[in-house]
Amino acid sequence: MKTILLILLFTVSGLIVAKDHQLAIVIHGGAGTILKKNLSDEKEAAIKAKLTEAINAGYAVLEKGGESTDAVIAAINVMENSPLFNSGIGAVYTKEGKHELDASIMRGSDLQAGAVAGVKHVKNPINAAKEVMLNSPHVMLSNQGADKFAKQQGLETVDNNYFDTDYRYQQWQAIQHKKDVSLSEDLLKTDHKFGTVGAVAIDKNGTIAAGTSTGGMTNKAFGRIGDSPIIGAGTYADNRSCGISATGHGEYFIRYAVAHDICARVLYKKISLEQSADEVIQHELKNAGGDGGIVGLDNKGNPVMTFNTAGMYRGFKTESSDTQVFIYKKKP
Amino acid sequence: MKTILLILLFTVSGLIVAKDHQLAIVIHGGAGTILKKNLSDEKEAAIKAKLTEAINAGYAVLEKGGESTDAVIAAINVMENSPLFNSGIGAVYTKEGKHELDASIMRGSDLQAGAVAGVKHVKNPINAAKEVMLNSPHVMLSNQGADKFAKQQGLETVDNNYFDTDYRYQQWQAIQHKKDVSLSEDLLKTDHKFGTVGAVAIDKNGTIAAGTSTGGMTNKAFGRIGDSPIIGAGTYADNRSCGISATGHGEYFIRYAVAHDICARVLYKKISLEQSADEVIQHELKNAGGDGGIVGLDNKGNPVMTFNTAGMYRGFKTESSDTQVFIYKKKP
Repeated sequence: MKTILLILLFTVSGLIVAKDHQLAIVIHGGAGTILKKNLSDEKEAAIKAKLTEAINAGYAVLEKGGESTDAVIAAINVMENSPLFNSGIGAVYTKEGKHELDASIMRGSDLQAGAVAGVKHVKNPINAAKEVMLNSPHVMLSNQGADKFAKQQGLETVDNNYFDTDYRYQQWQAIQHKKDVSLSEDLLKTDHKFGTVGAVAIDKNGTIAAGTSTGGMTNKAFGRIGDSPIIGAGTYADNRSCGISATGHGEYFIRYAVAHDICARVLYKKISLEQSADEVIQHELKNAGGDGGIVGLDNKGNPVMTFNTAGMYRGFKTESSDTQVFIYKKKP
Repeated sequence: MKTILLILLFTVSGLIVAKDHQLAIVIHGGAGTILKKNLSDEKEAAIKAKLTEAINAGYAVLEKGGESTDAVIAAINVMENSPLFNSGIGAVYTKEGKHELDASIMRGSDLQAGAVAGVKHVKNPINAAKEVMLNSPHVMLSNQGADKFAKQQGLETVDNNYFDTDYRYQQWQAIQHKKDVSLSEDLLKTDHKFGTVGAVAIDKNGTIAAGTSTGGMTNKAFGRIGDSPIIGAGTYADNRSCGISATGHGEYFIRYAVAHDICARVLYKKISLEQSADEVIQHELKNAGGDGGIVGLDNKGNPVMTFNTAGMYRGFKTESSDTQVFIYKKKP
């Protein structure tokens, strides 16, 4: 993965342009206590198929000469539209039995960014984040205001119960009667870390984009905002260093400004993305008790997937590698 | 300001403890196009008096052996309770003619942090941020949920119109009929950058704390969240490097992860806080068109106040310097 691809492109005018990066996309579908014994062969196959579909949808955009922002959107949309992940349809239930979704996106060429927190009616929250980035002077919109803005921009809206699934309903039923359960991490340990989705892509221009989308924590209350819609925590992209999408115990990712910190170490310490991600995820976060992981790309298009949990739904495709998907710590 | 104070303290047991930092607090009351010609002598005196009161309230906590978190709260409370600043009473009006307040706080010894966004009834939002930090497993709560949590924690709540002031009402009236004005930065240029308040303190244990509190942008809509409640953007504290509280055009401060980036440069590039803040505020942000500034302390207790606007309400007190307050670029 550390290969630096150097392709000399001869342009029409005869000038030689050195392309010192490869097209690449890397995605995740959440990290947590994902163990082989808890996952049926059927579900494992379904997850791998959906991850593959998401990677290929994003990579197709890059291959056609499209922008990394659109590749990230394409990949995340596939996962948002699948009940297998905690984003879009299949999002977890809040304490009130509703769904409140968060998403963010960032473009590394000009550090433009957009995020929505607590939307209830946008079918694909990552698209709302993109609209905020491209068509508003703001970076972060929340709640009804974010839904209203998304609707004004012509995005598809749905009733909140569109996001309902039996699987998530059963999870919620199992803990909903516990008082203020969102304030007790222990009760949620087996669930809330799963299913946030994200993608990082680099296009022909070398522009890195990163995006993250989630339904948050089961039974969440108090308008809790996690790391997914926070630029610098759950998502960051800077062409000078890297692009990152995170998943895990959001509070730690905010306090450690994980996505920005990984890119900052690459830029200022001049270390590889792999080393930087290891320092933050395997040392800083792990020592503090913060579970989770990240996927990322450096500005050569080398993918990195790092997590300190038992598993992370993940995969990538680059010019030098066909689509590969993984679930557990050791490659299956 | 670069003096490193080295005091040798002889403990009761006879051991020698090297205290390589000084007690210090530095505050701001907002940055923007603050020009002498637009400020009456009376208002200038009132602002300076209130800044002095805030600094001294915070420093008194440190002198009594208190924690930096409480010093930050004490200083910010003075400004929140004054109509001179855009935080607490005196907060600007939203598009609906209400007030929605944001605040965040962080402690550099263990990277604990708390934030509230869009609260309408907490008299002192910075206290709500502290409650989130100390008494919830979350970092960021929003809207009604944040108000509800603050009330449960026993904080003083008020009707939303407690925050009303004639001055801010007139500002709002002047622009409220413009359509979607919160999406047009130009119309707000003369106003929205003023008045966010913040403080950074270091206590006898060398623990740095940083906090920020604001009423946001005049006529804001769509549930816009600025940088003040975002850990890493408006506020950051890490004993290994520095503590930062920011004020300015929030969207830029989020995209550039300003507070975290300044601390990251100190830690990874091993440069002084002054140089780091200059790189970020005077170069990165200024080149991008991002107006604003920061106050900060390094882990020796050296205060830094950097801004790329005409003025910033600011001041500090340390063991080696009496209370000093400033408004314009050049010391008055």
